[in-house]
Amino acid sequence: MEQPNITGHTKLIGLLGHPVDHSMSPAMHTASYAHLGEDIVYLSFDVEPEGLKTAVDGMKVMGFVGANVTMPCKTFVGQYLDELTPAAELMGAVNTVAIRDGKAIGHNTDGAGFVKNLELNGVTIKGAHVTLIGCGGAGSAIMTQLALDKVAKIDVFNAKDQFWDATLDRVAKVAEKTGTPIELHDLADKDDMKACALASTIFINATPVGMAPNTDGCVATEDMLHEGLAVGDTVYNPRETKLIKMAKAKGLTACGGLGMLLQQAALGEEFWNGAKMDTKFIEENFYN
Amino acid sequence: MEQPNITGHTKLIGLLGHPVDHSMSPAMHTASYAHLGEDIVYLSFDVEPEGLKTAVDGMKVMGFVGANVTMPCKTFVGQYLDELTPAAELMGAVNTVAIRDGKAIGHNTDGAGFVKNLELNGVTIKGAHVTLIGCGGAGSAIMTQLALDKVAKIDVFNAKDQFWDATLDRVAKVAEKTGTPIELHDLADKDDMKACALASTIFINATPVGMAPNTDGCVATEDMLHEGLAVGDTVYNPRETKLIKMAKAKGLTACGGLGMLLQQAALGEEFWNGAKMDTKFIEENFYN
Repeated sequence: MEQPNITGHTKLIGLLGHPVDHSMSPAMHTASYAHLGEDIVYLSFDVEPEGLKTAVDGMKVMGFVGANVTMPCKTFVGQYLDELTPAAELMGAVNTVAIRDGKAIGHNTDGAGFVKNLELNGVTIKGAHVTLIGCGGAGSAIMTQLALDKVAKIDVFNAKDQFWDATLDRVAKVAEKTGTPIELHDLADKDDMKACALASTIFINATPVGMAPNTDGCVATEDMLHEGLAVGDTVYNPRETKLIKMAKAKGLTACGGLGMLLQQAALGEEFWNGAKMDTKFIEENFYN
Repeated sequence: MEQPNITGHTKLIGLLGHPVDHSMSPAMHTASYAHLGEDIVYLSFDVEPEGLKTAVDGMKVMGFVGANVTMPCKTFVGQYLDELTPAAELMGAVNTVAIRDGKAIGHNTDGAGFVKNLELNGVTIKGAHVTLIGCGGAGSAIMTQLALDKVAKIDVFNAKDQFWDATLDRVAKVAEKTGTPIELHDLADKDDMKACALASTIFINATPVGMAPNTDGCVATEDMLHEGLAVGDTVYNPRETKLIKMAKAKGLTACGGLGMLLQQAALGEEFWNGAKMDTKFIEENFYN
């Protein structure tokens, strides 16, 4: 595989979060840029929320191209940036920072990567009726992006836990700001979920259900997966979750989590420096 | 040559200065660490003095291993560090920063690299009588290191320009703090220089005289190069300056500037993380 050829001209993109040393992003983005012939490497930096302002100011003065931001920093970093994109503003979370003319601009590709992957698989977003299972970090980002992208309606299912009221507020805010009808439902009410699924054109799992080692788990029952429904999953380990297998067995369009991951990374590179990531190359070298 | 294999574990050393994109240090130190199997890369960052505090604070919170500092930042960065080594303190300039337990420690290897190279070539430093031509950045660092290393006497020659009084002050300060007799002489007085050279055991050129394209230049005349004198030059382009050639022709020990450069880099790696740079490998791959 192409390796970076580091010189005095080589530029840097960072990953801020804690912990970060397990992340595949440094190897993946460094290889991607080397493959594209771009003189940029990507390194991780272990930073906790209290160090974010100092890190962001340092990156700006040192001329970083940009950064990714991961847990637990995503919801804290926005206040230290110069600008936010509408997606980052509405999600209240930043996963991508570009530094342009000394200004740090926060963006969020978590939702956009998922939606882009659906579109690349032929799924129509505008005007769609979506059933979305889970409204944590990933689910919330996907909900917001779908609302920004003008779906007709979103039915969101979440556990009635201690975050229920906060989730209600978030749903109401996104609905108000985008004009998209969004309704929050109790995850435990399977009849309600079935009714929503049957009325939907897209069904999305944004919970960890189905992730290894518990690969038998599935948020949907078979009778929810009606003809014409497109199914998406945020889980990418295994590549095909039980949900994706069930959908494929029924002949439905089914998009696993890996595509979201790759599109999210590609949107990051585009945001940083306009690069067009070769997602096939990355998939073959990192996810086979 | 070995290439870095960047992952989430890879650590970073930076070069701060302006301009820095022409520097060979990123390629050289990155290759050196890859050759040693150390998971560290080295990148340059274009930073001017007014951005130094922010850059240093950023490097600390982001967990950099350390940095080199080059023009025009060397004399400014010390005030933003947590500690200085005696060499950096006395020189009033920092070219190397190590970050240990979140603290930034400033050091200066400019003089130590030159002296180490002399020692590796069998030159005795302690008790030596030194004639040093030039007291700019490099000359001043060498003067200070020689004084710290307890030479018997240093005769320093410098142009009687607008910096003469400042140089007098610097010489007096180093002499006082180290207890080493140091005398400042007028560079234009060649008789004086000859008298000093003849009384010396080491003769050093720390001016750019002899550097390409003006390779005919030489600060010394042949009659200064007496038997038993060791000769050192800070110029490394060409590898053998006229001064070094003259000294070798007379059978004297003669140390060109490349050795200083390599030892200075090796001392940096040792200061950062205790690494033992393979100077032969670097010389063969970068300076052939």
